[in-house]
Amino acid sequence: MKSFIDVPPHSHFPIQNLPFGIFSTEKFPSPRVGVAIGDQILDLSSLTSLLEENVPELKNLSNVFSEPTLNKFMSLGRPIWQATRRYLQQILSENDSTLRDNIELRQRALISQKLARMHLPANIGDFTDFYASKEHATNVGTMFRGKDNALMPNWTHLPVGYHGRSSSIVVSGTDIVRPSGQISPGKDQPPIFGASKKLDFELEMAFFVGPGNNLGKPIPIEKATDHIFGVVLMNDWSARDIQAWEYVPLGPFLGKNFGTTISPWVVTMDALEPFLVEGPKQDPTPLKYLQDTGPSAYDIHLEVKMKSKDCKSHATIANSNLKYMYWSLKQQLVHHSINGCNMRPGDLCGTGTISGGPDTINSNSNKSSLGSLLEITWNGKTKININENERTFIEDGDEILLTGYCTNKNYLIGFGECIDLLKHFM
Amino acid sequence: MKSFIDVPPHSHFPIQNLPFGIFSTEKFPSPRVGVAIGDQILDLSSLTSLLEENVPELKNLSNVFSEPTLNKFMSLGRPIWQATRRYLQQILSENDSTLRDNIELRQRALISQKLARMHLPANIGDFTDFYASKEHATNVGTMFRGKDNALMPNWTHLPVGYHGRSSSIVVSGTDIVRPSGQISPGKDQPPIFGASKKLDFELEMAFFVGPGNNLGKPIPIEKATDHIFGVVLMNDWSARDIQAWEYVPLGPFLGKNFGTTISPWVVTMDALEPFLVEGPKQDPTPLKYLQDTGPSAYDIHLEVKMKSKDCKSHATIANSNLKYMYWSLKQQLVHHSINGCNMRPGDLCGTGTISGGPDTINSNSNKSSLGSLLEITWNGKTKININENERTFIEDGDEILLTGYCTNKNYLIGFGECIDLLKHFM
Repeated sequence: MKSFIDVPPHSHFPIQNLPFGIFSTEKFPSPRVGVAIGDQILDLSSLTSLLEENVPELKNLSNVFSEPTLNKFMSLGRPIWQATRRYLQQILSENDSTLRDNIELRQRALISQKLARMHLPANIGDFTDFYASKEHATNVGTMFRGKDNALMPNWTHLPVGYHGRSSSIVVSGTDIVRPSGQISPGKDQPPIFGASKKLDFELEMAFFVGPGNNLGKPIPIEKATDHIFGVVLMNDWSARDIQAWEYVPLGPFLGKNFGTTISPWVVTMDALEPFLVEGPKQDPTPLKYLQDTGPSAYDIHLEVKMKSKDCKSHATIANSNLKYMYWSLKQQLVHHSINGCNMRPGDLCGTGTISGGPDTINSNSNKSSLGSLLEITWNGKTKININENERTFIEDGDEILLTGYCTNKNYLIGFGECIDLLKHFM
Repeated sequence: MKSFIDVPPHSHFPIQNLPFGIFSTEKFPSPRVGVAIGDQILDLSSLTSLLEENVPELKNLSNVFSEPTLNKFMSLGRPIWQATRRYLQQILSENDSTLRDNIELRQRALISQKLARMHLPANIGDFTDFYASKEHATNVGTMFRGKDNALMPNWTHLPVGYHGRSSSIVVSGTDIVRPSGQISPGKDQPPIFGASKKLDFELEMAFFVGPGNNLGKPIPIEKATDHIFGVVLMNDWSARDIQAWEYVPLGPFLGKNFGTTISPWVVTMDALEPFLVEGPKQDPTPLKYLQDTGPSAYDIHLEVKMKSKDCKSHATIANSNLKYMYWSLKQQLVHHSINGCNMRPGDLCGTGTISGGPDTINSNSNKSSLGSLLEITWNGKTKININENERTFIEDGDEILLTGYCTNKNYLIGFGECIDLLKHFM
């Protein structure tokens, strides 16, 4: 499959991807739905009559693409997502004349990504962050409780997760302000107030929930796929010193909720399906409600790059892959609702920091696949080089860039970038 | 001040209260804004022209009362809330003829509470639950870590809090389904799956945020009052066995997010102002950003009643008061935003379980002022009598009723009821 639109070989957005996002332009400042293709955006709000005529499933529903969020489209469910995607692939393909030969329509519906401003893909009702990478949980546990107590007894039985803050989730490109708060100078000393000195990133991915479930009605594992719309990159900014002092016994709070960045393009589960692989073997076997058949991990290569303000280029500081994650996205969703908790379209679930593969456990010498500076510098004990600068944690003016892609011999499906600058406390 | 509407002496809703809520009726099923007065609701959506004419601050804004949530009204800020309230008190007073003598208007604007269905007061963007009662934190800490380690070192320095789930917050009268989940049968044994056997209530109050703050811009303590709209009762249903197994190290999750009930009428801070009292002495003195001048606790009497399905009447099982709470509502809000976390109109912050006064610490003999069965029965070790039935935790068909009020020699300001039934797992 090939598009009539020129898509360079390393573009994240070939016709096989078509991620959904919310964008606006200076000329038409209303945020609306588009899909990315090469370096262009196909504006779905300008295709409503075509979509209504050619996608029977969208009958009387095409106004969902003029909405300022994807929540309504997410709520419609997999058959409608798939029908829409099929039709968009058809009209973008090199053999179809509908869009290719209609200059007026092309001028109206295709917009250069350079001219667009991206917005949050959804109104995120609730945000949950999991802790699903065994390597990450083991590293952090070893750091704070020693090697023998690294993983808590519950960790291998359930995907540990906690509620995060929705309001402070921002789209890639939004500056993050260094938080201040209470910091403990040492055991038995009272806390002091000041700007965080241990500011960190976390390499994560996150999925958007599609149709939800009613309160009191769990989602069974066989139905989980139908409830997941798509995936983005996520940087869960963390103030380690604030977090360390506050988090006992109820979990992270102000150490996390000053900002969480996500990439703007939501890559659908249909685009990712060719990259399904077997995940890590789960031992012990999970309880029945978490047992799945078939592959449920995704082979998504992930990279973290960092740049200080006086440098021109980013230095790569970590490479990992979503396939190392112990608990699958489906297991996370199913566990989340097993008590009857209701999920809503547009809810966001983060994976937690992804550090893998297996050779990264308890190893601070191999920095190549650790998803946080906490792990890379072993809580500030060692330094890393970012171009000509040394770093233990993030300094003012540093930029963190996450990126990710899947690839096979035919094409590449990418997530674009999740990039943000850390600003001084104001 | 007295209304021409008959308000019995023990009514929670005299003219001095006028709490805001969202209601609908069978005849007009659109949810809209009303205030409670006696056993009536004054429908503000039917008073738009009166309000626009007589409250200059509401010019071109009276459509906020036709909204299905209070979010927009909450966002308008204290001067508009006060002007609205003053005018409503004026037209409801016995000396004003505007409404009193206009039979057509009265028929249109006054609705019996019996005929109304109440809805959630706001679209709750984010829900945070604090842990602000020293007695409760000390009891729970003693139970799980022993008397000497009851309070964590951070507890007296900051209002400990964590993010909760918005989606499962329901309005009083919504049945709660007993959750299932992973439960640990004992140390070193694998978890089993089943319905929670330790289902509990938590007596809490919660405040709705008014105008928010921008990401990166904390709310100073001097401005905190302007950002708090009003207060409701809250029952934070808890599955203690699910919670005990899952909560380390990231905090409570499925043990909490299967349902949280709030009362429908939001009592404004203006109505509560006459009941401001000094809170508990804070030792050590909090850091500067948490230091407040003047009284900031509220003298609100709180009661918990319980009823099993074969009984006709509720038995009182706890009496407490919000004034015992260690960290004030203002301190909770200020701490929440000190790192730049952005609050939005309609966000909800719970106090955490209120157990007080001081005589309740470490005492399972005095059951009168403990805000959870976990404390009352000391994690199931002792039983209490509910009418003719014994209970350690909540059984199917049990009903929990929270109520609260402030009173002085002139009048009573009440919160109505927060009542819910526990249903069997489906």
